[in-house]
Amino acid sequence: MSLVVQKFGGSSVADAASVIRVASRIAQYAKAGHEVVVVVSAMGDTTDELIDLAEQVTPNPPPRELDMLLTAGERISMAVLSMALNNSGVAARAYTGSQAGVITDEVHGKALIQKVTPGRIRSALDAGNVAIVAGFQGVSQGTKDITTLGRGGSDTTAVALAAALDADICEIYSDVDGVFTADPRIVPSARRVPVISCEEMLDLAANGAKILMGRSVEYARRYGVPLHVRSSFSGRLGTIVSDDAERMVPVDPGVTVRIADVPHLDAADPSKELSVDTTDPGLEAPIISGVAHDRSEGKITVVEVPDQPGKAALLFDVVASSGANIDMIVQNSSTTDDTVAISLTLPEADSDVALAAIEQARETIGFSEVRYNNQIGKVSVVGAGMKSSPGVSATLFRSLGEAGINIDMISTSEIRISVVTDISRLDDAVRVIHTAFGLDAEQTEAVVYGGTGR
Amino acid sequence: MSLVVQKFGGSSVADAASVIRVASRIAQYAKAGHEVVVVVSAMGDTTDELIDLAEQVTPNPPPRELDMLLTAGERISMAVLSMALNNSGVAARAYTGSQAGVITDEVHGKALIQKVTPGRIRSALDAGNVAIVAGFQGVSQGTKDITTLGRGGSDTTAVALAAALDADICEIYSDVDGVFTADPRIVPSARRVPVISCEEMLDLAANGAKILMGRSVEYARRYGVPLHVRSSFSGRLGTIVSDDAERMVPVDPGVTVRIADVPHLDAADPSKELSVDTTDPGLEAPIISGVAHDRSEGKITVVEVPDQPGKAALLFDVVASSGANIDMIVQNSSTTDDTVAISLTLPEADSDVALAAIEQARETIGFSEVRYNNQIGKVSVVGAGMKSSPGVSATLFRSLGEAGINIDMISTSEIRISVVTDISRLDDAVRVIHTAFGLDAEQTEAVVYGGTGR
Repeated sequence: MSLVVQKFGGSSVADAASVIRVASRIAQYAKAGHEVVVVVSAMGDTTDELIDLAEQVTPNPPPRELDMLLTAGERISMAVLSMALNNSGVAARAYTGSQAGVITDEVHGKALIQKVTPGRIRSALDAGNVAIVAGFQGVSQGTKDITTLGRGGSDTTAVALAAALDADICEIYSDVDGVFTADPRIVPSARRVPVISCEEMLDLAANGAKILMGRSVEYARRYGVPLHVRSSFSGRLGTIVSDDAERMVPVDPGVTVRIADVPHLDAADPSKELSVDTTDPGLEAPIISGVAHDRSEGKITVVEVPDQPGKAALLFDVVASSGANIDMIVQNSSTTDDTVAISLTLPEADSDVALAAIEQARETIGFSEVRYNNQIGKVSVVGAGMKSSPGVSATLFRSLGEAGINIDMISTSEIRISVVTDISRLDDAVRVIHTAFGLDAEQTEAVVYGGTGR
Repeated sequence: MSLVVQKFGGSSVADAASVIRVASRIAQYAKAGHEVVVVVSAMGDTTDELIDLAEQVTPNPPPRELDMLLTAGERISMAVLSMALNNSGVAARAYTGSQAGVITDEVHGKALIQKVTPGRIRSALDAGNVAIVAGFQGVSQGTKDITTLGRGGSDTTAVALAAALDADICEIYSDVDGVFTADPRIVPSARRVPVISCEEMLDLAANGAKILMGRSVEYARRYGVPLHVRSSFSGRLGTIVSDDAERMVPVDPGVTVRIADVPHLDAADPSKELSVDTTDPGLEAPIISGVAHDRSEGKITVVEVPDQPGKAALLFDVVASSGANIDMIVQNSSTTDDTVAISLTLPEADSDVALAAIEQARETIGFSEVRYNNQIGKVSVVGAGMKSSPGVSATLFRSLGEAGINIDMISTSEIRISVVTDISRLDDAVRVIHTAFGLDAEQTEAVVYGGTGR
């Protein structure tokens, strides 16, 4: 009997009707004989409404009290979901993060899980129940206060419980069908990726793919938990995130398959099952597995920084101390004098504090000017195949050049290339890159990643 | 330094503005140097909204899951109230019933408190915080599941915490100014009762006064906790419920008085302080302290029950087994045959199950007919002075007779007389009785109870 952890996000349980629909999906698994643990987020806009309420009484809610308030959201959704399951004849019991043994540090609002002691959940399963657990929340080890895990916290709850319970799969349900080779709203021919490695998923997440937070993927990789990202609306197969192609995983009620054998669907025609060729692994490995994009960053350029040892380090020190997260960095030496221009990208939300901190250090660093531009977009290609394919960057730059798209900044890692362009050309950039690497559904030469048995 | 427990009901924290107003009252106590524990109900209609949500997914929510759902209501109100207090410069921390050590049995929906272990609350006070506690909820000793205490549960939480913390007073805030000699909506000249004994308060509660549930008064009597029922809107003195006239209690921020010296206000002119004469205790004790009424009951009459030993007992047995709560019972012997008619009153909500149970026992009991009438009202006079005043019932019946009000049933206890009338005459009955016993504010001979130092 396999153990399945299923996480449902807020859009999957937006109202009573959605809760009933989700309960019916869970019930199918339970009735097929799987042990099921469900992690659920707050219903629809509940969390935003609770934050609004807090803001009506104070501009600065104390973090401990804010956590207490926000955790009411999952308390409601998990109780209602449990009721719906019981109503459909499936025994279920709901548990708070604290009751489920999600032990965290004491950093309210973005607590880190320290350990999971799922004794009550194990007992509930042994007694024949579906266990429903509140996502996003835990209890601090020292102070026994209620904590929240911050963004993507419910995914992390699900993965952590799956690890602690040695689950066979951790399914992350949302409103999209899985990981695609690019955002289907920008590239209509984008295709679903049936299987992807943890490293690639991490790079996609870090470069703008919103389907999974890197944090939960990191957790899954560390504990060897296979993830299955899929839609609670379609019920179709989604994307399995795993590094172990030989592992057997449940993919539907009563259906367990080897990851290497996971069938995949053509996104252009979801009814069409593509056969998977596992006889020749590696040879047809696609060079890139996906194109990610990000509109949420801005670019700071510091002009005429003295070209002296330590000045650049000082600048980054100042920015880091302001609490801003730096993403990309580019430094250009001037050819005419002894100064350099340093550009960096960072989340737009962090730009104010970073700009203020840099301005304050003007005399110490000795630059002449700071510029800020939020009209930028970042496009990234990610793929494990890049490691052994030196032509990738040439293909990338050529495709952008032919489309007349200027490249502003470039940053690379072993399996990723990111470029910054003007935001007005970002969608074009995603499309031409997707085509250049043969990812479009109609291109016969395209091999969807996962066909090699990873 | 005195310890004050303050309970605020849902109407006192209906929205963010109300929460801020309540926080400002609490802050006055904290800034005057009192230790303050606050028990809070769910905001406004939250509980009803959560019940609606449950009913959208199932007609029969499992009690355990329903408790989990409903406790989200106080979680929200306590967190928001704590935020508002912190915002006004008063350190506060919110605690769930479980965290506050409210240990109950396992009867979901109407759990009984088994013990209170307020270690975390005591520590929070010692660290200089106002402690906010979720009312209405606890955690079961055995299963460690979240429970709710049922109707009036937040009052009970407050009294139980006050007892466990040895508080100097337990203030119950609502939207009325205290206990009145009759419902001011029916008797405009009704006067506030400044001090009342536990026994009288229990009898008033049992006979329709909605201001306090008997359960919390019973708890207060057992543990000797003085209660102060007052309005969160006016801030005026309300009604102190206590059997110990010599006890010192805090009644306003920084103000502590002997209960016997509690000043009282003329309800007709709330600005006018009446002096309290404590020199002649007992002589002017009023005969009755209040007139209560109740419209929520119905009357079942079972006709032609054989006048044989055991038949009446069998009838009550049948009704009790149906789960219905019997209030009054009257049996009339027939003068013409060997049968009796038995009438009983009970909450209208219980009438269906009781009638069905009686009907099912028709053959066993052998009666001829069952009648049901929900157009009845009950009016009760309550007063410890009745014990030594044999003329009370005569005054009562004379006043009703002179007003042409028929008496349908009568029930008495040592300190109470209740009569059932047609519901159309109930308000008249309350008014004529209030006047007959000299309780009207303009009657100079009226002595408001409490003047004798009880």
